[in-house]
Amino acid sequence: MALIEDLNWRHAVKAYDPSKKVSKENIDKIIEAARLAPTSSGLQPFNVLVVENQELKEKLVKGALNPECMRDCSHVLIFAGWDRYTEERIDKVYNYTTDERELERGRFGSYTDMLKKIYLAQPAAENFAHIARQTYIALGLALGQAAELRIDSTPVEGFDNSVVDKILELDKLGLKSVSLMYVGYADTPKDWIAPMKKVRTPKEEFVIEFK
Amino acid sequence: MALIEDLNWRHAVKAYDPSKKVSKENIDKIIEAARLAPTSSGLQPFNVLVVENQELKEKLVKGALNPECMRDCSHVLIFAGWDRYTEERIDKVYNYTTDERELERGRFGSYTDMLKKIYLAQPAAENFAHIARQTYIALGLALGQAAELRIDSTPVEGFDNSVVDKILELDKLGLKSVSLMYVGYADTPKDWIAPMKKVRTPKEEFVIEFK
Repeated sequence: MALIEDLNWRHAVKAYDPSKKVSKENIDKIIEAARLAPTSSGLQPFNVLVVENQELKEKLVKGALNPECMRDCSHVLIFAGWDRYTEERIDKVYNYTTDERELERGRFGSYTDMLKKIYLAQPAAENFAHIARQTYIALGLALGQAAELRIDSTPVEGFDNSVVDKILELDKLGLKSVSLMYVGYADTPKDWIAPMKKVRTPKEEFVIEFK
Repeated sequence: MALIEDLNWRHAVKAYDPSKKVSKENIDKIIEAARLAPTSSGLQPFNVLVVENQELKEKLVKGALNPECMRDCSHVLIFAGWDRYTEERIDKVYNYTTDERELERGRFGSYTDMLKKIYLAQPAAENFAHIARQTYIALGLALGQAAELRIDSTPVEGFDNSVVDKILELDKLGLKSVSLMYVGYADTPKDWIAPMKKVRTPKEEFVIEFK
């Protein structure tokens, strides 16, 4: 029940204590959970970007809907998807995979041919929609890992992607931001949601069993 | 490091032993992790559908790209999103939340007004794209929970949504399938991927630190 306990423990923190920093070791663990996340066809079409530098955070605040949280948290993680699938990116992943497995390159050639046929024919927006979905699997697991470590966090969609992408020059990396995750330690007296009960859709409504 | 160990343990199983069933208790735990998953504004705009009945699974197999997996696994979980955000659905969630927190209804009224303004103005496709993303947070956590229990699973996008939606008459529930999760116990000799090394993008490529 460890994960369930961790998920019951966590909530989306609304105020951070700027004097408390998360250790490098723990940031690495949170990112490791994201790195191990499964993705469609194992392509892992995204990166996790890490911003700890206060000056850079202050610049990013322009694009944040909850500026105090971004300013005061210890680290901002940015889940940034590939701007699109390309032949080169797919080949790179599968070449690395076959090399690591000591298989001949091209072993999964018919599969990657199929992937390329599907993805390269898609309009860019449809392509990116699929990529963006994958990042959420990793976001969920990173939030779970932070909770296991009893480190506070906030998953964030409420920000202006164009500001973040521009400041970090993500176009040069072929990336586009999808979501943020603030990581740090709550300022509990200011974290107004902390004393409130965690509420979820009741089980009997959430689950639908087909007999 | 429990979650990281669990994620290292798991892989997307390619063959299930049809004689082995997952207990109700463990299915409940896997779904509980999905139910506790955070979602945008706490709306939880999806349900988890559970199919254990073999006859029904056989019908759904028509829409599966990996029919043996669907046929032989113990349970098929279906992550199905709301077909769109509506005023009624948003109010229902927030009325329940305020009731559970013993706050007056409407306490978050200015927030829900903003949500309605955004979501109700969006085209249906954009609305559903946002909903679909949320389901992936829960999918990731459900996969993590299955791994903690050392129960095998497969996250599945490779299926024909229209077949699944039609057979389960999801339109009547105002839902649309997004992804599947097969749950069960692997048929290890047939699970060709089991002996292969788990490969992920190397950490130094996956993480980008902005100084």
